[in-house]
Amino acid sequence: MSNEELMRRAIELAVENVKSGGGPFGAVIARDGHIISTGVNRVTANNDPTAHAEVSAIRAACTKLGTFNLEGCVIYTSCEPCPMCLGAIYWAHIDKIYYGANQHDAAAINFDDSFIYRELELPMNKRRKPVENLLHNEALAPFNLWREKEDKVEY
Amino acid sequence: MSNEELMRRAIELAVENVKSGGGPFGAVIARDGHIISTGVNRVTANNDPTAHAEVSAIRAACTKLGTFNLEGCVIYTSCEPCPMCLGAIYWAHIDKIYYGANQHDAAAINFDDSFIYRELELPMNKRRKPVENLLHNEALAPFNLWREKEDKVEY
Repeated sequence: MSNEELMRRAIELAVENVKSGGGPFGAVIARDGHIISTGVNRVTANNDPTAHAEVSAIRAACTKLGTFNLEGCVIYTSCEPCPMCLGAIYWAHIDKIYYGANQHDAAAINFDDSFIYRELELPMNKRRKPVENLLHNEALAPFNLWREKEDKVEY
Repeated sequence: MSNEELMRRAIELAVENVKSGGGPFGAVIARDGHIISTGVNRVTANNDPTAHAEVSAIRAACTKLGTFNLEGCVIYTSCEPCPMCLGAIYWAHIDKIYYGANQHDAAAINFDDSFIYRELELPMNKRRKPVENLLHNEALAPFNLWREKEDKVEY
């Protein structure tokens, strides 16, 4: 399938999802032009604030391929990924992002918390969400244990 | 439980997770000092790149409380949330974030893709990951359908 056909599928999924009571967002993950997985926004349906279309598609692709590394895959998403989804796309090592609508289109239908996009660009002490450091030294314990364990591994 | 006790629990979870073959990260979600849910990093164990401690704890809390809105809840995470987890925390409407170790500590044990933190601060055309807009006008269809549907709802 071409890039346009794959994007059209993501858009169709978004339309179908609105019809079935979900949010207006769909995504497709493909490799070499073949669909690996799809995802739609099921935040309210599943009571899962992380169930955005892109995250759903990533989880489905990883389950299907039996890996957490989607190198060689491309994501087609009906709307520009939010910071959560963008982070997930990076962690999944997806090669490239195609998006249709953008964050401003989403804001125009009041379907975003558009401050999230701006918020993550701010230094921590300037963000709206209160954040506080606690027990820094004690929190190094799991990292130290990890390091010891890694040191014992023979490569 | 006090903030310190709740953070210590998150740190303990991270230590236990290393011992059982997972990543050195743990998180606790609490309301009024009572634990609602916990999460650990299960990325490699579950083949799920989104299974960071914070995301896992958020999903578990939402399932337990039957809501996608965790207002009134606080998250204690053994390490500073990555952009994906930070996005998830915002979407879940969690009130406040307490973190132990930070992204630099994680980088010191090579347990981060620290460029992710910087990458999301960049404008889209400056990022490392290729991103391309496609079929913008067609991609407005699900938003238009959403708007029509919302207009029909009586409030």
